[in-house]
Amino acid sequence: MQTCKQQSHAERSANGRAPRSWITFSFLHSGVAMSPKITGELLRQLRQAMRNCKYFSEPLQAYIVPSGDAHQSEYIAPCDCRREFICGFNGSAGTAIVTEQHAAMWTDGRYFLQASQQMDNNWTLMKMGLKETPSQEDWLISVLPENSKVGVDPWIIAADQWKNMSKALSGAGHSLVAVQDNLIDAVWMDRPERPSTQLRALGLDYTGKSKADKITTLRAKMTERKITWFVATALDEIAWLFNLRGADIEYNPVFFAYAIVGMNTIRLFVDLKRLSDPALRDHLQLDSPSKPELSIQTFPYESVYTELQAICAAQGPKDKVWICDKASCALTQVIPKAHRSAIPYTPLCLAKAVKNATEIQGMKMAHIKDAVALCELFAWLEKEIPKGNVTEISAADKAEELRSQQKDFVGLSFPTISSVGPNGAIIHYRPLPETNRTLSLNEVYLIDSGAQYVDGTTDVTRTMHFGTPSAFEKECFTYVLKGHIAVSAAVFPNGTKGHLLDSFARAALWDSGLDYLHGTGHGVGCFLNVHEGPCGISYKTFADEPLEAGMIVSDEPGYYEDGSFGIRIENVVLVIPTKPKYNYRNRGSLTFEPLTLVPIQVKMMSTELLTQKERDWVNEYHRKCREVVGAELERQGRKDALEWLIRETQLIA
Amino acid sequence: MQTCKQQSHAERSANGRAPRSWITFSFLHSGVAMSPKITGELLRQLRQAMRNCKYFSEPLQAYIVPSGDAHQSEYIAPCDCRREFICGFNGSAGTAIVTEQHAAMWTDGRYFLQASQQMDNNWTLMKMGLKETPSQEDWLISVLPENSKVGVDPWIIAADQWKNMSKALSGAGHSLVAVQDNLIDAVWMDRPERPSTQLRALGLDYTGKSKADKITTLRAKMTERKITWFVATALDEIAWLFNLRGADIEYNPVFFAYAIVGMNTIRLFVDLKRLSDPALRDHLQLDSPSKPELSIQTFPYESVYTELQAICAAQGPKDKVWICDKASCALTQVIPKAHRSAIPYTPLCLAKAVKNATEIQGMKMAHIKDAVALCELFAWLEKEIPKGNVTEISAADKAEELRSQQKDFVGLSFPTISSVGPNGAIIHYRPLPETNRTLSLNEVYLIDSGAQYVDGTTDVTRTMHFGTPSAFEKECFTYVLKGHIAVSAAVFPNGTKGHLLDSFARAALWDSGLDYLHGTGHGVGCFLNVHEGPCGISYKTFADEPLEAGMIVSDEPGYYEDGSFGIRIENVVLVIPTKPKYNYRNRGSLTFEPLTLVPIQVKMMSTELLTQKERDWVNEYHRKCREVVGAELERQGRKDALEWLIRETQLIA
Repeated sequence: MQTCKQQSHAERSANGRAPRSWITFSFLHSGVAMSPKITGELLRQLRQAMRNCKYFSEPLQAYIVPSGDAHQSEYIAPCDCRREFICGFNGSAGTAIVTEQHAAMWTDGRYFLQASQQMDNNWTLMKMGLKETPSQEDWLISVLPENSKVGVDPWIIAADQWKNMSKALSGAGHSLVAVQDNLIDAVWMDRPERPSTQLRALGLDYTGKSKADKITTLRAKMTERKITWFVATALDEIAWLFNLRGADIEYNPVFFAYAIVGMNTIRLFVDLKRLSDPALRDHLQLDSPSKPELSIQTFPYESVYTELQAICAAQGPKDKVWICDKASCALTQVIPKAHRSAIPYTPLCLAKAVKNATEIQGMKMAHIKDAVALCELFAWLEKEIPKGNVTEISAADKAEELRSQQKDFVGLSFPTISSVGPNGAIIHYRPLPETNRTLSLNEVYLIDSGAQYVDGTTDVTRTMHFGTPSAFEKECFTYVLKGHIAVSAAVFPNGTKGHLLDSFARAALWDSGLDYLHGTGHGVGCFLNVHEGPCGISYKTFADEPLEAGMIVSDEPGYYEDGSFGIRIENVVLVIPTKPKYNYRNRGSLTFEPLTLVPIQVKMMSTELLTQKERDWVNEYHRKCREVVGAELERQGRKDALEWLIRETQLIA
Repeated sequence: MQTCKQQSHAERSANGRAPRSWITFSFLHSGVAMSPKITGELLRQLRQAMRNCKYFSEPLQAYIVPSGDAHQSEYIAPCDCRREFICGFNGSAGTAIVTEQHAAMWTDGRYFLQASQQMDNNWTLMKMGLKETPSQEDWLISVLPENSKVGVDPWIIAADQWKNMSKALSGAGHSLVAVQDNLIDAVWMDRPERPSTQLRALGLDYTGKSKADKITTLRAKMTERKITWFVATALDEIAWLFNLRGADIEYNPVFFAYAIVGMNTIRLFVDLKRLSDPALRDHLQLDSPSKPELSIQTFPYESVYTELQAICAAQGPKDKVWICDKASCALTQVIPKAHRSAIPYTPLCLAKAVKNATEIQGMKMAHIKDAVALCELFAWLEKEIPKGNVTEISAADKAEELRSQQKDFVGLSFPTISSVGPNGAIIHYRPLPETNRTLSLNEVYLIDSGAQYVDGTTDVTRTMHFGTPSAFEKECFTYVLKGHIAVSAAVFPNGTKGHLLDSFARAALWDSGLDYLHGTGHGVGCFLNVHEGPCGISYKTFADEPLEAGMIVSDEPGYYEDGSFGIRIENVVLVIPTKPKYNYRNRGSLTFEPLTLVPIQVKMMSTELLTQKERDWVNEYHRKCREVVGAELERQGRKDALEWLIRETQLIA
């Protein structure tokens, strides 16, 4: 899926830091309502709450409403859409600040139009990235009376964001204060419940590693770094550690929880009602733990704060607690500074990124099934488009329907980007009734889609023309393809960070004066979030961890001609060892193996622009698609799709 | 010149930060003495000084001796070689710390052997980069008695280094204290004088921009950022600003000075004896300034501290002082925190990096003269090597002699790296009598050399074989050449940072499992330091500024086969605008033009490994060498060199 690093960059400058998922997907998490929300009464109630000493000992002169949830998730549940509730704007990125006199909302260039349509006159839109737009800190300082209190919910602001904002405000004589009760929740009468979906236990045949082994590995890392406690707050890390999945957040098979792991104890904080299923209790060995140090103590989700407090109060003078520096300010500050060890990537994040043999096998299976669905889709589109009845939305629906027919399908891994012609040039596009275009023989079609299967997560983009593409469209497609191949076929030393490969994806475009304004790839989870750290391929990220065999990332260069068409070619690829002719300093070398096996449309290629090596790569890739996916199509008796696959994988010369 | 980023990386971790020149050249700044210095008596005297309350109000339990000078220069003058004086080790990187009981010296992998040979048993060698080696802070904390005072000269420790060290020590109950008199100087009886060489004024025909214009541009930047004072501490920035050159530091045409620029005043701090020459006084308009705000007030070098103090004392509440975050702790701390604006790159550093038309023309001329000298050298080597009398040292001397015959020659820009066979694999090699090898028909010869001319600075590396290279040597050379061409011919959007091009230089090597452990390029001054920021091409630097037309950098990939040979191909290249087929978002595109015009030895190429594009690049490059340098060789009547040039620039097919 397209990663929109450009925008995430903008978000970064707005809120001081990146969201937990270091790759930001710019999705519209619900349909875009185009009439403004009426907010006068809501603001009045919020301001009343700000003055109410029930919530804070003194009146607040300002209140900050960030976008995130208490886990700094990239996607959030409806109950956490507080910024949307207060101002009406439902884009993925934005921070609202309300003072006695003003209400302002900061968002980035993607959302200027949408935000201006969704917010009423009570709100000032702060257009981030424009020179004249003040930062949140500068704006607050310019409008606040002396010695003001600025409130924020410490659970939904990350520790380092808090630090920056607090420093700026206190430098100007104000103070940032933690308000334990969320003031939006106080005025949000019909706020949805926090989801508590059924949990799914995953066996070794899916995970390849038991939770006991994962805990043991974690504890070994803790011992190595002299850490006595580890606090897990990222939902995907907790799901991975316990080999559990949920469905609390759309597209992300996670569940609301915290975990605290000591050298002899494991505490899981989760809605306890979820743990009544005997199979689940059995999976977690809640009633008969194998060894005492592997027994899991369960606590209500909300009690993590007091429990962590109790743990910290009982600490020895040398005890250290590991917590991600992206964790909430509330939990981070429970740990006394002298005992706190804040790290950018937790050991779980790092371990999760390197897939084991079972996970790799599962990801391969998931991608074959996914390819079956897409071959079927494209064969269907070829037949249906000439009839003039296929739209962006119906094509996306068809893709979902076909995926849902595959074994172990759970749901989509993100909202399908299905875009025709000029809509394809809107990188974060998602079809809506008011923008929905009909697929035709005259325009380029771009579909970026993926699914969650129990054995793996997929994410693939193909750009097709069902008529005759223009010379320019073909030329651009070919440059993008050259970039895709340059990354996919790159050989590089062990220890290389992904961002060093980003320029390979651009060289052919650059040579012709073209470029794309997003990163080239993101980490992909295994039946987990489609975006995960700590690896990726982007010129904007220097904090990525080195690529290692077993990591899985996307390779998705593109080109976008505003008002005309969009091109992106995306495969999910696995980092594998390779043995070139030499082995300098015994470092070993790596390359990528495509997991995605969907033909890349030859009709869109100007093959004369490809080198022999690139043509060989295309032929070998298509040979593999035909062999592997062909066998599965045959097995499933999908004749039309098989015929399409064979036609689309002819050798190019 | 080779940049040894690997080592500079190590240095960084040692002293907390990079030296001012963000590219570190690992040179041995004097011949390596291989017997240890006897330091017992010196250490006794130093410890006596540490206890002497004449220097600090309380006894010091430890004293830190960093490598640098008060300007955080990359190369330093003999009077600043304090760390060498106290421990005997004269490598370019190292920090000595002396306590009552211990004496320890931290250096990196390049210098383990040398340092162990140069230091006596009073010293413990701290091998940086090894896991078991403690950091300076950790070591101090482990050996110091409670509540210790650790002294350091605040002039030779940078502000941020001070901050880090101070924080670590105070966290453990100790304190870092500034000792105004340098304690090494107190015990260094025959310490050389600070150099005060004759200053050279450069006219507009060399600089292209008057000092008045440079001051005006600087003040415009200050106004833009609401800055009232700018403190210049980097020697090359001061030389550039005043269009003056000196010879205080070997290879660097700079002079010891500070400058403080206000909106109406310019203060220059320099040994006033240097300003007696009427021509110089005229250049600086000391006696008859054109406009009052451009009049230069001169002060003794040492008075910068008190003068800056006076300025700060007279500041308004909103006044802001710009100072580089790499400036000394002493000067930085004079400026009250509320008035201080510490920046990674000063406006002078940024302006100096973009060469104007006159400077570019000068650099081109300097490179033509330099090429003449090198063509002559190589023609001479071809004849002389078979006689068996040419050594690394005599070849380097010959190169210097030939350069010195060129107009406006001033001196070398760095110590020549002249290396045969296995010595070539030592990246920071410099020939010494005890390592000096004879050039032969059987080994690869690598020469990395450059000069200062009044019109420009050069830096070029060529790797040659005067007999028959092995297939492996040719193969490696060809990969390095492919990398060199990939960078030199790269087209990239305006605004691209140099580090994004680094992987282009490595792709061909990586494909075969090879690599080199240094950066690919550094900024080059114009009759200034051969290494300058803020641009460069290295995977290790993310803080580089975007490349702009007019910037000049080196392009120098390499390959080093330990114990056997070294290969490096280095040109200095100019960033120029280019117009590819398209112009995405009107950003414009850039590429490089080689300024270095010395043939690249065809004999070392496996031309069958080159693509047609690469062969075309070589032929076009050689055509230009022949045309431009050939004309100058002809003019200078250097027939042998011309013949050699014509032979070495034959077309390849």
